[in-house]
Amino acid sequence: MTIQERKAIPVPQVEARAPIPPQNLRVPGPTPVPPRVLEAQAAPMINHRGPEFSAIMKRITPRLQYFFQTTSPVLTYPASGTGGQECAIVNVFSPGDHVVSVIVGNFGTRLAKIAETYGVKVTRIEFPWGEAADPAIVEARLREISDFRGVLLTHNETSAGVTNDIQSLAAAIRRVSEDALIVVDAVSSLSSIPLEMDLWDLDVVFTGSQKGWMVPPGIMMIAGSERAWKAHKEAKLPRFYWDWTSARKVLETSWQHPTTPPVSLMYALDVALEMMLDEGRDAIFERHVKAGEYVRARAQAMGLELLATDPRYASNTVTAIKTPEGIETKALLKKLRENDNIVLADGQDHYKGKIFRIGHLGYFSQEDLEVVMDTVEKRLGELGFHK
Amino acid sequence: MTIQERKAIPVPQVEARAPIPPQNLRVPGPTPVPPRVLEAQAAPMINHRGPEFSAIMKRITPRLQYFFQTTSPVLTYPASGTGGQECAIVNVFSPGDHVVSVIVGNFGTRLAKIAETYGVKVTRIEFPWGEAADPAIVEARLREISDFRGVLLTHNETSAGVTNDIQSLAAAIRRVSEDALIVVDAVSSLSSIPLEMDLWDLDVVFTGSQKGWMVPPGIMMIAGSERAWKAHKEAKLPRFYWDWTSARKVLETSWQHPTTPPVSLMYALDVALEMMLDEGRDAIFERHVKAGEYVRARAQAMGLELLATDPRYASNTVTAIKTPEGIETKALLKKLRENDNIVLADGQDHYKGKIFRIGHLGYFSQEDLEVVMDTVEKRLGELGFHK
Repeated sequence: MTIQERKAIPVPQVEARAPIPPQNLRVPGPTPVPPRVLEAQAAPMINHRGPEFSAIMKRITPRLQYFFQTTSPVLTYPASGTGGQECAIVNVFSPGDHVVSVIVGNFGTRLAKIAETYGVKVTRIEFPWGEAADPAIVEARLREISDFRGVLLTHNETSAGVTNDIQSLAAAIRRVSEDALIVVDAVSSLSSIPLEMDLWDLDVVFTGSQKGWMVPPGIMMIAGSERAWKAHKEAKLPRFYWDWTSARKVLETSWQHPTTPPVSLMYALDVALEMMLDEGRDAIFERHVKAGEYVRARAQAMGLELLATDPRYASNTVTAIKTPEGIETKALLKKLRENDNIVLADGQDHYKGKIFRIGHLGYFSQEDLEVVMDTVEKRLGELGFHK
Repeated sequence: MTIQERKAIPVPQVEARAPIPPQNLRVPGPTPVPPRVLEAQAAPMINHRGPEFSAIMKRITPRLQYFFQTTSPVLTYPASGTGGQECAIVNVFSPGDHVVSVIVGNFGTRLAKIAETYGVKVTRIEFPWGEAADPAIVEARLREISDFRGVLLTHNETSAGVTNDIQSLAAAIRRVSEDALIVVDAVSSLSSIPLEMDLWDLDVVFTGSQKGWMVPPGIMMIAGSERAWKAHKEAKLPRFYWDWTSARKVLETSWQHPTTPPVSLMYALDVALEMMLDEGRDAIFERHVKAGEYVRARAQAMGLELLATDPRYASNTVTAIKTPEGIETKALLKKLRENDNIVLADGQDHYKGKIFRIGHLGYFSQEDLEVVMDTVEKRLGELGFHK
């Protein structure tokens, strides 16, 4: 089209907005948000450079440090979880650095791809979807590889419903290298499943608001250890939006951000953290343990097979269930959505259509999960599946 | 600190949340958000991979194309305006490319810095803060420079209260180069001040939700021309989070995003766009013209000096006013905030403390601005300033 042929764009005709019926939302993020947190977003805008906003950051920041279990500053960005992956890579590595990527599913693959996109050399240690990374195997492989700058780990692999034993993996890595940077994608685990950033000697940990934090999507949170900050000062990958130095400087001098933060989502996070502390970290963990056990037990009792076969590594935030032979995942999910307003997730990548996933993280009650499992059983029966 | 010395982090003691009194918020973003838009955020979460969310994107996308005046897809990201700057650079340029950066203030400087951070070679054409870029000077300089891949422009320079004549600048650039990529930072202009992406032959245009769009911060919107998409396919800067190809593919195949979008902010944008179309694009422009004229006239009538001396280029979204001799900008802003709940902005960079800025974009009425100007006059008087 030449410039002469261009025309003014008219007002488009679109479908009118219609109210969205409330969903029994059980995808592994976005997760349901408590009414108090939803309403917190509706407060009027304030200046992100004023004392009222700084007061919010003064509450949020130490509380995030508590949930990360770190004395390092926790930085917040307007971003999705994938932004956390990119932010982690560009802040601590240089072009040509060699990292080892321990992959147990789709999000591990993505983290490795981002590193490669930026010119970092990646060696993969892959485990089949549904299995956790075996610390002994990882340790042995790392000894063979010997020369690596960092190791990329996924705490909870959302695509496969598997939780890695990060404490043991980190200890295994440390036995091979004292100064390798341990990068942990904790997007769908942090605050729901125990993680101790400082005690486990992890170097970069990041997460997203739309998972266990009971907040809508849009805030990414990330922290770096002393070792990571030292690496950051030498790291040569290009970074501006994600740059830790500017984020930390503005946080430490004025409890603000280098660029405009998502103010209404910060209101929500402020209230959600308060609710989480009211419940208590251990109580939250315990609720997730029970949720995972309940969903897995119900699935197995109705004759379904889990993707994560070893209960020690089955995730307590998301359960991946193999769709029974002869049933279409898409048809099951559609039936649940249209008849019951229950929203579950399909599989990803090569498991698309082969599994369905139930999120049980953040804001949920035992009753919520009972309704989901009862209904899944009923609808599977209607589709012809019986134990 | 060695690992042995590390301890569990206790629950932090923080100041309790206190209600924030409503502000007469007149910084140039975040801007006030209409009650209907604020409330839209409080709707329950939905699946970002479901038909309900796609329905929102089917409304938002063509309406954004209308406000951008482009047939190109408008992509949305969880990000601030600075994310738009980075997204623009990494999607269309390669390391070693030479671009010319036309700078009239702080945000132009930032855009040039981001390009340099990524290894793009930048030649600057700078104008003093308060002046617009002169198309004749830009054209003459471009002829001297002769070999350049792109030109970086700021439509409305928030730091200086100046609006560049993008149509004339683009025409000047095209007289020198038919295929240079024209990148326009329209963060604090788009939807408030006329911009015709296709008719003016602009290649990359981006903006942010917290400015003229009457939505809280957290959504960045960006579009590329056919020329920009052609460049994108060859461009070699590293990109993953900001990658246009994946964003466009997922938008065009399923009205979704490659990663999790800020769902509650998208609810808000959906409602805000509806309100904007109800008011009408021309009516919105006219309201901003009147606002700019009113604020400038009042400032000058009370004996204040504008940073933008030429009324043809004075911004209709933000006015930068020189703080009178003998008065501290900080003291004035504090007085207005504490006594009147009126929140204005300080200057940036070397103008910090030397100017104050009044935002008049997005959601405001003539009465809002009258209250602001009356009160500024009164408080300046109390601080000892008289005409």
